[in-house]
Formats: sequence, structure tokens, C-alpha cells
Amino acid sequence: MKTRVFVTLKPSVFDPQGRTIVEALGSMGYASVHDVRQGKYFELEVAAATVDEARATVSEVADKLLANPVIESYRVEVDGDDGP
Amino acid sequence: MKTRVFVTLKPSVFDPQGRTIVEALGSMGYASVHDVRQGKYFELEVAAATVDEARATVSEVADKLLANPVIESYRVEVDGDDGP
Repeated sequence: MKTRVFVTLKPSVFDPQGRTIVEALGSMGYASVHDVRQGKYFELEVAAATVDEARATVSEVADKLLANPVIESYRVEVDGDDGP
Repeated sequence: MKTRVFVTLKPSVFDPQGRTIVEALGSMGYASVHDVRQGKYFELEVAAATVDEARATVSEVADKLLANPVIESYRVEVDGDDGP
């Protein structure tokens, strides 16, 4: 089953990479882009009988390995599911 | 307008980060996860009058700055649009 995990910095955490991208874009003439946040994106293939099982496995994996829960939050998407 | 860009390695490009995650998960007892591809995720706030204008700006930005078109492909999502 195909799943996707989006990991982003929590809104209260400063994102220097995003800030740098905004400044680079400004100097390239894209002043209309006024905020950028960079995150990580994972595509995971999971063997699971149901959407709920896949979601549970991938949430655990995101918590333990893919995201740092102190400064990051994550969202899980499973193919064939409309989300919570 | 809120937009999102997903940058992933092209399918033909080997992803050593993803491979390492699969191996780490195997040793942690998550053998059901059998493939992982890691990518980048960006949230961009763009000043644009229409969804099409926002999509055009962000596609240009992704091409020029966010993705390396030689080895990466990208997908753009704009809030209020159902996609192409």
C-alpha cells in the first residue's frame, strides 16, 4: 500500500532554509513569493491488509524515525483513504 | 495563496537515504515497510490574483531553484485547485 508522510517544522520554529529561499527568490525577481517553509517528504510502500493498519504502522514510523517530535509535526496520507 | 511543491528523485535514480531508512526500519521490527523514497516538501505563500497565476509562478520557481531537473521531478499543488 502506498503511503506518504509530510514532515514540517512546527509553526513556532524558525526555518532558516525557507528564509534563505525567500531571499534568493527576491533577488531573482520573484517578490510575490513572501513566505517559504521547507519540510521533508517520504513515500513508503507498506504491506498492510487495511488502510487503518497501514496508517497505524506509518504513524509509528514517522514518530520514531522520520520526524523529531520536539520541533517537527507530520501528516500521513494513505492511498485509498480520504484522510481523517 | 498557499501552494505546495513536492520534489522527488526520478524513479530511475537510486535513493541511498530511502534505502538506509528501509534498513533501519527492518532492524526496528518494521519489516512490512519494504520501500522508502525520500523527497523535499515546500510550502510557499504567493501573492497571485488567480490559481493559474500562482501555479505558473511556483512551477517556474521549482524549475529554477527548488528542484534539479536532471535527477528530480516535482509536483505543484495550489489551494483551491483540484490539480491538472
